Amino acid sequence: MENRTELEKLGEFGLIDKLSQSVKKYHDSTIKGIGDDAAVIDVGDKFMLVTTDTLVENIHFNLMYTPLMHLGYKAAIVNFSDIYAMNGDVRQIVVSIAVSNRFSLEAIEEIYAGINKACELYQVDLVGGDTSSTLSGLVITITAIGEVAKNEITYRSGGKENELLVVTGNLGAAFMGLQILEREKEVYKENPAMQPELEGVDYILERQLKPEARKDIVHFLHTLGVKPTSMIDISDGLASELLHLCKAGDLGCVIYDEKIPVDQETFNAAREFNLDPSTCALNGGEDYELLFSIKQTDYDKIKDSPHMKVIGHYVDKAAGASIIARDNTSLPLQAQGWNHFS
Amino acid sequence: MENRTELEKLGEFGLIDKLSQSVKKYHDSTIKGIGDDAAVIDVGDKFMLVTTDTLVENIHFNLMYTPLMHLGYKAAIVNFSDIYAMNGDVRQIVVSIAVSNRFSLEAIEEIYAGINKACELYQVDLVGGDTSSTLSGLVITITAIGEVAKNEITYRSGGKENELLVVTGNLGAAFMGLQILEREKEVYKENPAMQPELEGVDYILERQLKPEARKDIVHFLHTLGVKPTSMIDISDGLASELLHLCKAGDLGCVIYDEKIPVDQETFNAAREFNLDPSTCALNGGEDYELLFSIKQTDYDKIKDSPHMKVIGHYVDKAAGASIIARDNTSLPLQAQGWNHFS
Repeated sequence: MENRTELEKLGEFGLIDKLSQSVKKYHDSTIKGIGDDAAVIDVGDKFMLVTTDTLVENIHFNLMYTPLMHLGYKAAIVNFSDIYAMNGDVRQIVVSIAVSNRFSLEAIEEIYAGINKACELYQVDLVGGDTSSTLSGLVITITAIGEVAKNEITYRSGGKENELLVVTGNLGAAFMGLQILEREKEVYKENPAMQPELEGVDYILERQLKPEARKDIVHFLHTLGVKPTSMIDISDGLASELLHLCKAGDLGCVIYDEKIPVDQETFNAAREFNLDPSTCALNGGEDYELLFSIKQTDYDKIKDSPHMKVIGHYVDKAAGASIIARDNTSLPLQAQGWNHFS
Repeated sequence: MENRTELEKLGEFGLIDKLSQSVKKYHDSTIKGIGDDAAVIDVGDKFMLVTTDTLVENIHFNLMYTPLMHLGYKAAIVNFSDIYAMNGDVRQIVVSIAVSNRFSLEAIEEIYAGINKACELYQVDLVGGDTSSTLSGLVITITAIGEVAKNEITYRSGGKENELLVVTGNLGAAFMGLQILEREKEVYKENPAMQPELEGVDYILERQLKPEARKDIVHFLHTLGVKPTSMIDISDGLASELLHLCKAGDLGCVIYDEKIPVDQETFNAAREFNLDPSTCALNGGEDYELLFSIKQTDYDKIKDSPHMKVIGHYVDKAAGASIIARDNTSLPLQAQGWNHFS
């Protein structure tokens, strides 16, 4: 090959954009291909949703501090989250696991126990898969199949100027959980006899090791009679996802730093690490919360919910994407989320 | 963990059996889960089919002799084959690629060019995926979505005593292609200046590096008005697949060695390597042909086709699975196919 473009220069989204250019469509049943949280397929009286996500050892997880059961659970959850982000429900998954001989049957059974637990709690059928070997690491790819009524589907696009931007739960916790685990890993490496300092961080550790997906929110909004006009799940950090929504909807946005929901444990841990809690929330990743827009007329229906918070609104595209800091200055919103190839 | 059961003792199918035991089903729309070539989901007036397969560097392919474009093509084909084995057609795929930094954008584009080529020829939409990094190797997982009319679906089970067993194309070619490539790799390692000996083996190399899936057969049988009573694709070798069919259908089988279709190039290469051509056909793997059963009354419809050959028939389960050798002795059929964990 004569040209060589490094992947780290492109980043994951640049790579996806490049690869998408050469993809063709042959079937009318393909409603939406690459470019949203899940692909959308017309199967008659409803849409099916398909999404896939891979977790790679030592890239997405470290087995020094990740229990195998939690790993299986998380591998399922990250996929469920993509289906909920389309306002749909998950029905089936297929699981592909590639492992080396250093894993025993019992280890694989632990991973499956976690997957099965997630399937039980979220009511999902594990319907197939593939097991193969690797020379070293562990790789899990799960593909989730969901469904949604045709008039209920929500895309990344679809938002309009002045509509409200809402996030669920709180942000930055999974990222701070990861910082704690990485710190304790280093401590352990230097002195295996040392007891890990894990007091008062249960919640943020769980957010990292065993996250949940917001099926409850999809159900709740449905009950309230609120249909999000655009939606995405927060896996790479709030800033990155906001920019995805703005790009898909041909819009700009304004959000307010002081409105970004951050849990007390996240806040404390960020301070301990000399990090800005808001920066952790904006760029941390792995939160698996939902970010969506609603019509202003729907505000009254959601305003009392402890599970969601309005953080800003869409504006005209020309105004760009910005964040209003606590001192009232306006800063351009930038994604400093994960670049898997750097 | 107190117990440790080695994966190599179980093998891939033993592992799948073990893991399947703890899987539960929550949705009536899940018609068939683990245990066939693809999962079957009821979506209203038809069935959707879902299958997934992973190719791992240095386990399933070696980049010393695998062009990246062919690798992408093959990664798609192995999944298409599973959908055709359900008598269905492929509609969509999602692609997950995990690579290290040693791969450039141009390398990934080559892989995608191969996937896109397969999608074009087989009329399949690439609708999504995931790209992530690894510390070293390349892992490709593709999930294929297909569909089939409810009255056309064919499972591994469903065959009956005395029904005819039919294979398409010819067997053992991909395995012999692999032997040639491995031999030339060793020669190259010892003396990089040496020209590879690849004359007269074009066909078997292509069968290994760029296999096709038998969409044509599904269409052809449909045109002939023949519905297979049971079917599987031949990915792990004829013997292994026959045993799967017998197990699924609660049947035994008799096949005739002299009837197993082997191409002349495969035969010649096997002889050159001092291998028995029939053994290569029985256990070679990666042929991606179809093995199916038909009613005896359908024999006249298929007997003149150059694309398929009757190799035996189902018998009572108690009679077991056997192969009649060329000297007319009967031998028990044994799967010596790939054990990915050994």
